[in-house]
Parts: sequence; structure tokens; C-alpha cells
Amino acid sequence: MKVIHCDNRMLSLLEAIRPTTLIRSAKLIDYLGLDITIASETFQHTGSFKFRAAYNLAMNVPNDRFLTASSGNFGQALAYSAKLLGKQCTVVMPATSAQVKIDAVRGFGATVDLIDTKKVGRNERIEQLREQMPDAYVASPYDDQLVIDGNATLGHELLGENFDTIIVPIGGGGLISGTIEARKSGSLATPTLSNAETLRRGEDIKKSQRLSVSALTVDASRAAIFGAEPLHGNDAARSFRSGHLTANETEPTTIADGARTLSLGHLNWPIIRDGAKDILEVSDAKIAEAVRLYFSLANLKCEPTGALSLGAILENKALFKDKKVCVIVSGGNVDPDVYRSLLKG
Amino acid sequence: MKVIHCDNRMLSLLEAIRPTTLIRSAKLIDYLGLDITIASETFQHTGSFKFRAAYNLAMNVPNDRFLTASSGNFGQALAYSAKLLGKQCTVVMPATSAQVKIDAVRGFGATVDLIDTKKVGRNERIEQLREQMPDAYVASPYDDQLVIDGNATLGHELLGENFDTIIVPIGGGGLISGTIEARKSGSLATPTLSNAETLRRGEDIKKSQRLSVSALTVDASRAAIFGAEPLHGNDAARSFRSGHLTANETEPTTIADGARTLSLGHLNWPIIRDGAKDILEVSDAKIAEAVRLYFSLANLKCEPTGALSLGAILENKALFKDKKVCVIVSGGNVDPDVYRSLLKG
Repeated sequence: MKVIHCDNRMLSLLEAIRPTTLIRSAKLIDYLGLDITIASETFQHTGSFKFRAAYNLAMNVPNDRFLTASSGNFGQALAYSAKLLGKQCTVVMPATSAQVKIDAVRGFGATVDLIDTKKVGRNERIEQLREQMPDAYVASPYDDQLVIDGNATLGHELLGENFDTIIVPIGGGGLISGTIEARKSGSLATPTLSNAETLRRGEDIKKSQRLSVSALTVDASRAAIFGAEPLHGNDAARSFRSGHLTANETEPTTIADGARTLSLGHLNWPIIRDGAKDILEVSDAKIAEAVRLYFSLANLKCEPTGALSLGAILENKALFKDKKVCVIVSGGNVDPDVYRSLLKG
Repeated sequence: MKVIHCDNRMLSLLEAIRPTTLIRSAKLIDYLGLDITIASETFQHTGSFKFRAAYNLAMNVPNDRFLTASSGNFGQALAYSAKLLGKQCTVVMPATSAQVKIDAVRGFGATVDLIDTKKVGRNERIEQLREQMPDAYVASPYDDQLVIDGNATLGHELLGENFDTIIVPIGGGGLISGTIEARKSGSLATPTLSNAETLRRGEDIKKSQRLSVSALTVDASRAAIFGAEPLHGNDAARSFRSGHLTANETEPTTIADGARTLSLGHLNWPIIRDGAKDILEVSDAKIAEAVRLYFSLANLKCEPTGALSLGAILENKALFKDKKVCVIVSGGNVDPDVYRSLLKG
């Protein structure tokens, strides 16, 4: 086993994030007849995996101010990361974003800039604001190496579990590219910490150097990594099939609001093209069914985007027979009214 | 630090259960202005803490058949424990029980005996069935030393975290009496296992002796232990105030369906009387509000009974100021329609 030493920045990152929550439900396993383990990021700081990316970015750039466009989860994660690090943050959000996500970004002390996306594009608005704040770092929720590296921490945790298959929700491609990057370097020597240790880390988020984690070990994980993408907004699947980066013509209308991206990022695309096993398309009906199954069979509340991985299984059950499968639930932030309507079916 | 050695039976029990899930939500902490840690049993096997009790009972009695009356969670837990141990189980349930709980008991291979509680009492029906199955062990969901001992495993995990205060939902008193008993003996030497280890334990539930846990250590935990009881069905609070075990005249109608008990158990009562700090009464409105707060601020799905501890805080905020508080969420099994109506508020 090859050992890679972590530097102090990696230690600080590992100290800040919460290890993922692994859940095995006998009811879900029996219902599907498949060996499923849930890796839930719904209890990560700010309620989604995006904190891994945002904190890594916020701690590694020298700027004291951030500017980002986000439908919500990356915005919350960057807002909280900036708060923890004593920095400033402005988040451009569509006025149609889930109210719970707008409120949360504000709750973490960031400035929210609401836009009517029919009148001004997100990127256009970012350019306008960049002129007003020339010292700000403009943070992409997925198309940034620091984002990919931050997301890789989840991959490192999971690869220690020796899954045959890992299914990852895909929007801009930040999480799946991080997972693929992690497979190149291997699993964490201490793959996940105890709950008690997690708790201590959560409390002492700024006190670095206290972790006993000091190395990454490379194992020869052969996990196949699948992307799970909304059928309404299937740019990644089309790109993967054609071999050329392809964009949606307009912002997709899928219920998976965290995956309403126009296209994969330019940094993410080649990683996905070369490293993903396949990109599976999931109908909104199967996304909603997956939300209900998590609720009823695993006591797990998740947002529609978070349910994409299980949705991909519902669309392609035969593909996962006799495999040891991990479904990543990327986040849990969803408006109560949306959730109520999803539960109704 | 005094070390108590675990026997093989204790090791088998610790191997079968999943450690509790500790969750800290910055949103919830900010909203309440209190230092709150959630200990969630919603991801325990069968979705509630009852598995700790049921498995300990099922593995420690020689009988091959169990008979119990349960509104659902203990029934599921005993059904699954019996299945894991190759034993038989019959569960008497009111016909008005949550359908999801009835289905789950059946799903674990047990026989469900539905009764109209207006025509025949649970105890009366148990007596009828006992005559038909003279070899069955009649299991109380709370009033049994093996149940209390099984529940104590949660207390052992939590006492290692040095909380000032632990708030425990109370129905028949099984969980709070286990928590109090645990305080007498102390915390686990390895308080909670890593997620990875949890996973391995979940998979190899019958392979005992693989755990490295070999001892309990006694620390001088001084945690104050509060019970949280529905106001509609406040027999425990009235018993605690009067010093005499007092029963409800009829089955309470609270939305906390896991706490619709007539009275505390005879074994539980003296433990609670002597060891609890207080029993706090929670209105159904505050129970529902707590369910909504868990949903919106912590991404946690819980059943009404599971929300009692947070409900007790909402009723008595000043009591917990400047304390390091643990709220136990006892379970997560709730019908989708009931949950939808709770979310609507």
C-alpha cells in the first residue's frame, strides 16, 4: 500500500468537513433486491456536499471576498465557509430559487443578489458585480480545480469501502469529477471518523492540526463511477455519448433544481469523459419515486437532486444486480411545500 | 478510570446495533440560541431505538417464539430481531396503527394480529394468544429488564460525549430508564464506531466476536436526564410530581403515537422516580413544530414521538440556556400522509 502524506491544508479541510453518513436500510435492500448503501451528505455542514468544495476553495484563495452564482446549495456552502473564515460573500440567485435556500444563504451572513433570469443571465450579472468588486474571487460551483479537489474528499471516504459501483448525481459535474479524481489517488487511511470524533470536529472547526489523519493510502479501487442526470437536462449524457461537450439550449426545468445547469464545466468534462462508466438519465417521475422510497424505507429526507442516484437505479435495475452499490445523496435542502407534493406522488 | 469487562453477550449486542447518528446543525443552533446536539435513532435498524431493546431480549431468552403488543416500533424491532435470530414472532397491534408500521412488521416476517381496541384490550388479547402458544415469551416493549439493558447501550454511547443534559422521549419509560441505568455504569470505552465499522457490523450482524470493543469504562458523568412526554397523556409527569405511579384513564390521543401508553412500567417507574431530573410535558402543537424544525433546519425526518425532546425545549427554552444539550430522536417511522399534514402546520 502506497502512502501519500497530507499537507497542512488538506488536514485543515478534513477537519472542517463532516464525514458522510453511511446508511443501510434492510427495507430498501429487500424492496430493491439489491445491495445498496446510502452515502448521505444531507447532514454535511449546510446540508449538502457543496461545503466540501466551498470550504476548500475559500481557505485556499487569498481573496477576502467571494462572488458566485448558485441556485442555492453552493451559495449556502460558500456563505458559511466565508463566515467561518472571516471573509465576505455575495451570491447571485434566480428569484425563482427555493425560498429555503435564499433564506439560508442570508442566514449565513452573505449578501443575496436576486435576478430575473429572463432579463439578465447569471454570468452577465456576475460580470456586472465583478466590476463593482474587483477584489472578489469569482467562484464556480463546479468548474474550478479547488472545487473538484474539495469534492474528492467524499470519494476518498467512499473508496475505502470497496464498492463495486458508485452512483453520483450530476449537474455541472463537480462531484463526479471529484470522485473520479479521488479514485486516482485512493482512499483515506482512516476512511471515516467516529461520530464522536465528527462531533468534536464540528465544534472546533477552526482549530486545525488536531486530527490524527496524516496520510492517504492508495488502494487499487476499481469502483465503476456512474453519473445520474435528469432526463430533462441531459447535456452530460449527450456529451458522453457523442464524445463532445454539449450544452442544453435553455436552463432545464427538471424538479432536480440543483442540476439545472446548461453544461458540464470545462475542467470537469474531460475528467468525466475519461473516467465515468456511463451517464444515466432519470425521469422526473423516477426522481420523485426515489424521494418517496428514501422517506418510507430509509427515514431519509432528501432533495430531488439528491435522489438522482437512486432514481438511476429505478431506471436501470438490471445493471446493478449482484453489485455492491453506493448511492450518493448529494443534499437535503428542499422547501416543505415541494416535499409535501413529492410525498403525495 | 474504572474498567468493566463486557461479556460475550454484550459484545454480540454491540455488534448487532448501529451506533446512534450524532448531528449538529448550525441552523438549528442559531435558531434556538442553544448548544444542541441531535442523537438520531432514525437510522437504527428498523428505524427506531427499539431495536436495541428487542435484540437484547430476543438473544437472551431461550424461547423460540415471541408474543408482544406494540403500536408499531417495538413490533418491527422484535420482528426483525426474531428474523435475524431464526425465531418466530407475533405482534398484536391496534387496527388503527400507522399502516407503514403494520406493513413493516409483516415485512420482517412476523405475524400481525390486528385488534379493535374498543372491543378487546391489548393485554386481554395477549392472554388469549398466550393460551394458544404456551411456549411463547411475552415481551413488554418497556417493562422488562432485558429491554432496559438493551436501551442502556444508547446511554453508554451518549455519556461519552459529556453532555450537561440529555432529553429523552417518554412513553412506557423504557428508553429513559435505560439511559439512567447507563449513567450508573458509565460510557463505552470506544463510544461510537466509525461509519465504516458501523457498515461492516450491519453486514455481518450474526458474526460475533469481531469487535474490538472489550470494555466499558466508568466516568463520572453528571448529565441531567429529562423525560419529554406528550401533554395529552402526561401520566409520567403526574407520577413524578406526586411521587406515586399514576396511570392515564384511557389511551391518550396525542399525535405522538409511540407514547400512547397508559402508564410507566413497574420496573421503569422507580428508576425514573429516583434518577430523572424532571418530566417535561409537550403540547401536540410543539411536537408538530419540532418535527418541522428538524425538517427545515437539520434535514432530519422524524416521527412525532421522536420530536418530543426538541418539543420539550420549545416549551422550556430558559431551562437549557448555556447547557450542552443532547436531544434524543427516538425514531423516524411515520406515514407519509401524517408527515405531510405535520409539515403543512
